[in-house]
Amino acid sequence: MHAKTLSASLIARFVDIVGASHALTQAEDQAAYLKEPRDRYSGKTPIVLRPGSTEEVSRILSLAHAEDIAVVPQGGNTGLVGGQIPSDGGNEILLSLGRLKAVRDIDAAGGTMIVEAGVTLAEAQNAAKGAGRLFPLSLASEGSAQIGGVLATNAGGTAVLAYGNARTLTLGLEAVLADGRVWHGLRRLKKDNTGYDLRDLLIGSEGTLGIITAACLRLFPRPAERETAIVAFANPELALKLFRRAEAEAGASLTAFEFWAHRALEFAVKYAPNVRDPFTDGYPWYALIELSHGGKSTRIANTIEPLLTSAHAQGLISDAAIARSLRQADDFWRLRESFSDAQKGAGGSIKHDISVPVACIPEFLQRAAKVVEHACPGARPVPFGHFGDGNLHYNVTQPIGMDRQRYLALWDQMSGAIFDLVIEFGGSISAEHGIGQMKREVLKRYKSDVEIDMMRAIKKALDPKGILNPGKVV
Amino acid sequence: MHAKTLSASLIARFVDIVGASHALTQAEDQAAYLKEPRDRYSGKTPIVLRPGSTEEVSRILSLAHAEDIAVVPQGGNTGLVGGQIPSDGGNEILLSLGRLKAVRDIDAAGGTMIVEAGVTLAEAQNAAKGAGRLFPLSLASEGSAQIGGVLATNAGGTAVLAYGNARTLTLGLEAVLADGRVWHGLRRLKKDNTGYDLRDLLIGSEGTLGIITAACLRLFPRPAERETAIVAFANPELALKLFRRAEAEAGASLTAFEFWAHRALEFAVKYAPNVRDPFTDGYPWYALIELSHGGKSTRIANTIEPLLTSAHAQGLISDAAIARSLRQADDFWRLRESFSDAQKGAGGSIKHDISVPVACIPEFLQRAAKVVEHACPGARPVPFGHFGDGNLHYNVTQPIGMDRQRYLALWDQMSGAIFDLVIEFGGSISAEHGIGQMKREVLKRYKSDVEIDMMRAIKKALDPKGILNPGKVV
Repeated sequence: MHAKTLSASLIARFVDIVGASHALTQAEDQAAYLKEPRDRYSGKTPIVLRPGSTEEVSRILSLAHAEDIAVVPQGGNTGLVGGQIPSDGGNEILLSLGRLKAVRDIDAAGGTMIVEAGVTLAEAQNAAKGAGRLFPLSLASEGSAQIGGVLATNAGGTAVLAYGNARTLTLGLEAVLADGRVWHGLRRLKKDNTGYDLRDLLIGSEGTLGIITAACLRLFPRPAERETAIVAFANPELALKLFRRAEAEAGASLTAFEFWAHRALEFAVKYAPNVRDPFTDGYPWYALIELSHGGKSTRIANTIEPLLTSAHAQGLISDAAIARSLRQADDFWRLRESFSDAQKGAGGSIKHDISVPVACIPEFLQRAAKVVEHACPGARPVPFGHFGDGNLHYNVTQPIGMDRQRYLALWDQMSGAIFDLVIEFGGSISAEHGIGQMKREVLKRYKSDVEIDMMRAIKKALDPKGILNPGKVV
Repeated sequence: MHAKTLSASLIARFVDIVGASHALTQAEDQAAYLKEPRDRYSGKTPIVLRPGSTEEVSRILSLAHAEDIAVVPQGGNTGLVGGQIPSDGGNEILLSLGRLKAVRDIDAAGGTMIVEAGVTLAEAQNAAKGAGRLFPLSLASEGSAQIGGVLATNAGGTAVLAYGNARTLTLGLEAVLADGRVWHGLRRLKKDNTGYDLRDLLIGSEGTLGIITAACLRLFPRPAERETAIVAFANPELALKLFRRAEAEAGASLTAFEFWAHRALEFAVKYAPNVRDPFTDGYPWYALIELSHGGKSTRIANTIEPLLTSAHAQGLISDAAIARSLRQADDFWRLRESFSDAQKGAGGSIKHDISVPVACIPEFLQRAAKVVEHACPGARPVPFGHFGDGNLHYNVTQPIGMDRQRYLALWDQMSGAIFDLVIEFGGSISAEHGIGQMKREVLKRYKSDVEIDMMRAIKKALDPKGILNPGKVV
């Protein structure tokens, strides 16, 4: 569709917009932008543009629109579905937002913060912290992931249970449209019913409807106190029971309920740096539970201990380790965050970012294990994830001794069977990572024609020439 | 645009879909559907159709699409901006969703409920209550307002502070599109990043992009305990200080912070049934504060008393009445809910549903009073609303003795000046009531061309013939 090759003179016009030092045309300079964390997608581009302002982004898009040139926006390049990687055709401009790094405004009392797209998630968290507030969104790649990409993919992470995903945490956006015009939608209001919800349409659209250049984010009071524990279960049904009880007892104080299989812990201890098993015995399933106590008056130390003591007495949990210091709590979280990377040590992995209704998790796990064994006997499921959101990273490590490439060649077949099962449970084939390149074709299999048509009509309405991140999402 | 007159034979085809007993063609049968709560908008229709199923809605839209007939959807007819009223042209079908009354499913443990569009908000609350759960959305017209309309307008109300507006409370939708096709989007998932956010696009689109026939709503634990108080302030700055302190002390337990001027109380006591002033003295400003304690472990009785005692000792509040029984708490809420109706007793009102950043409320109130006095000397502001959301119903009652119609003729002039002020504060000219007919023209003055263009492009993409609720929103 966008086979148009950029002429040297057209490239020069794009370079002029950002300045030569911010336009990368050499392969070695471009390399870091053209491969992604899992090495599944790579692409080519005539030029990587690194604009320094919304106005430069606007000028780039104006020119691209006039000349019918495709543009692939990229943030911290941490996406896992290839959404930020151009095609192999070599005709798509890569637009890196990383230089838009201003924290434009923090209103601590009002609980809002305006940051530009290139601010990393960790920088945004720190800016909020510096103002005595909490920006709760948190995920393993937060040191690199940038706000623009985080919003474009509606990222989730470990704090969704209490605070919601990226969408929930955003009040307003500034974005550049396909034709280069700037939508100034940086509202700070909790309530605004003046027309269509363009904000939430752009959030999660993966750069296919507009390019987010800044956002107004919601800030929260910092918890006065946190309690963190890792607990062990004999089976996922018991984890579900403890989750329900924790919800009922702790209410809005329950800020995390992360879950994993023994194999995730085993790989982490074996292959990840600086992590340890909090228990001396091994157990089949685990959860990391965090309670956060916000206001002074409602603060109660030791909510978690009676909760777990009674759960243990009633046989819901096999063991529990409560963090006795901030450092120990950090150790627990480091263990949890190590699972994805640690799997690399055990060979190739076929990965699924899925969700099902929380109540279905136990049955899903049982049936998914059978699906895996059928698709590839000996393959080793390493499920972990955000139990309270129904979101599992259902990753499957290769059988011991199998050739890595031969195993990875089974990806589509195994995924197809897992996705069929997910749909049977009324679940989602992409809970938090998005569609990108990876799931674009598979999406058509699971969405109705009506929904695909609606998406295409909207895409065409906002990007009639199809220059924004072509080949992604829809 | 839709000047096409419905022939008798075409009307008969529409009647066939729902059956003669559910198709109203006589003026006396139609009357209740054609006027709205404030008597500002009225319209004409050749026929009111009351379909009994999503499938009938789908057939009506298919036929309307094929024949190029406009359709105006209507729920409980409680909207305040004329969005649910057809034009005077008499060519638009009125589609009443009130017969879609099934509660299709309640999953108490999973915290979800699927209800059809015609279920009233009060019925939805009761269905949740019957399952031991809370559906928190609450507003004065909840006995009549229907879920379809509540979602189509993204309604707010008194529980937004803690639980969010209608959008936040919705997981999935079923909707009939302009061409009659049904979008089956009734997901129950907390996380689902598979493409564009069609749900939030339809929510708040006021029936102009599709007709919502059912929704999957989020349910919450019922608070184990509630504390309710009315407090009095010398000025709005002190209300802001108490709000900040209540936020900090009570955190997520702060579930309401409603606010009003003395005149609202005065009119309520004078003109509303069964309300009383909780104080013997009069004060310039008041707030109703509610704390809800969810989980057993975090429950603390008497959070509100120490909060208010110390606020009183420090001169933040002039007086406080704490509800000592559920009945007294109900009395407090009935007072709060009576303000809008009670104003009728004092003559004509010019009403504004606006929001500004919370911190700006005191300054806004000062400046708005001057704007009003300039626009109509002697007019009496009766501001009240959802302080914690920055959402004020800035209503202005006519001067004593002025002719009602002569006063109401000043509506556009006074509103224009109030809206200019709202925009100066970065606020919204419609915080929770929507655009409808009332603010469609004014919207163009305050939205950028870019945003209006985006909205029009989306409207055209999903309703190319413009048959869905024409003349509303955009």
